[in-house]
Amino acid sequence: MRLQGPNLRMKPEGDDRERLVCGDCGFVVYENPKVIVGAVCTWEDRYLLCRRAIEPRVGFWTMPVGYMELHETTEQGALREVWEEAGVRAEIDALLAIYSIPEISQVHMIYRARMLTPDFAAGPESLEVMLVPWEEIPWEDLAYPNVRWSLEYEREMRGQSGFAPRGRPL
Amino acid sequence: MRLQGPNLRMKPEGDDRERLVCGDCGFVVYENPKVIVGAVCTWEDRYLLCRRAIEPRVGFWTMPVGYMELHETTEQGALREVWEEAGVRAEIDALLAIYSIPEISQVHMIYRARMLTPDFAAGPESLEVMLVPWEEIPWEDLAYPNVRWSLEYEREMRGQSGFAPRGRPL
Repeated sequence: MRLQGPNLRMKPEGDDRERLVCGDCGFVVYENPKVIVGAVCTWEDRYLLCRRAIEPRVGFWTMPVGYMELHETTEQGALREVWEEAGVRAEIDALLAIYSIPEISQVHMIYRARMLTPDFAAGPESLEVMLVPWEEIPWEDLAYPNVRWSLEYEREMRGQSGFAPRGRPL
Repeated sequence: MRLQGPNLRMKPEGDDRERLVCGDCGFVVYENPKVIVGAVCTWEDRYLLCRRAIEPRVGFWTMPVGYMELHETTEQGALREVWEEAGVRAEIDALLAIYSIPEISQVHMIYRARMLTPDFAAGPESLEVMLVPWEEIPWEDLAYPNVRWSLEYEREMRGQSGFAPRGRPL
């Protein structure tokens, strides 16, 4: 008997939509959108960027971001990613942006954070980490459009607080 | 051979934390926090409330809320819940609150929405639906603390826009 794991698309009893079900044991995989958390971190006028060591977009630059894990708040998740990918301790001061990406069922929540010291170190998912002034941001080598959106909104909201988080540009 | 489905807690190769794995076929269940979306809906000075028909908290009152589904934005999810639970067509105008509840790995995103007409009808997950003035909100019979928080913040932010979403009170 060769086991295949959850590979059937079917509507479980009492549900109103199809789910992924294991044809062998009946386990239902409830797939819901995933939350991606991260932060645009700054030290004085400089921005923290990480060069991706993992697929997709290896070699391109991003703020620290990653999947939110169980049993953390969105803020804790963002600061965990900042630590894991850039070796940076920071504190969050505002929610900068929320990007729903329904094509891939993700919700990105990007914070604005202040580094507590100027220290950083590339974690296992980063090829290198840098702290650069606005003029030296590698705009052509950013990993995703939302990295640019987030950096631009941080710049626009410098010194402001109590603002609404930006959404995905139309 | 009796199949048990994913019932092992173990660290998959290359991962940095334990996941739920099927001991029969090796399928890895990546469990991440779930997003709950909903909206405080109003028609003029009245608030839309639903009495829960499903566990937990059957019989208690809430704004329409539920699990975000795949391939929708947070706003679309909130309006889908408003339609499914209260039979209401509404439009979103602001993000009112974000409540991280790490104890149960949920992130609630509650919007402020205006009903397009005063019509409503209880959906399958609601025992009844009502549109009540502030003075008639059944404060003692609300399903969860965040229902109260959301209603209070809607009241506080009436007529304002561009504000930061409220977090969970400390």
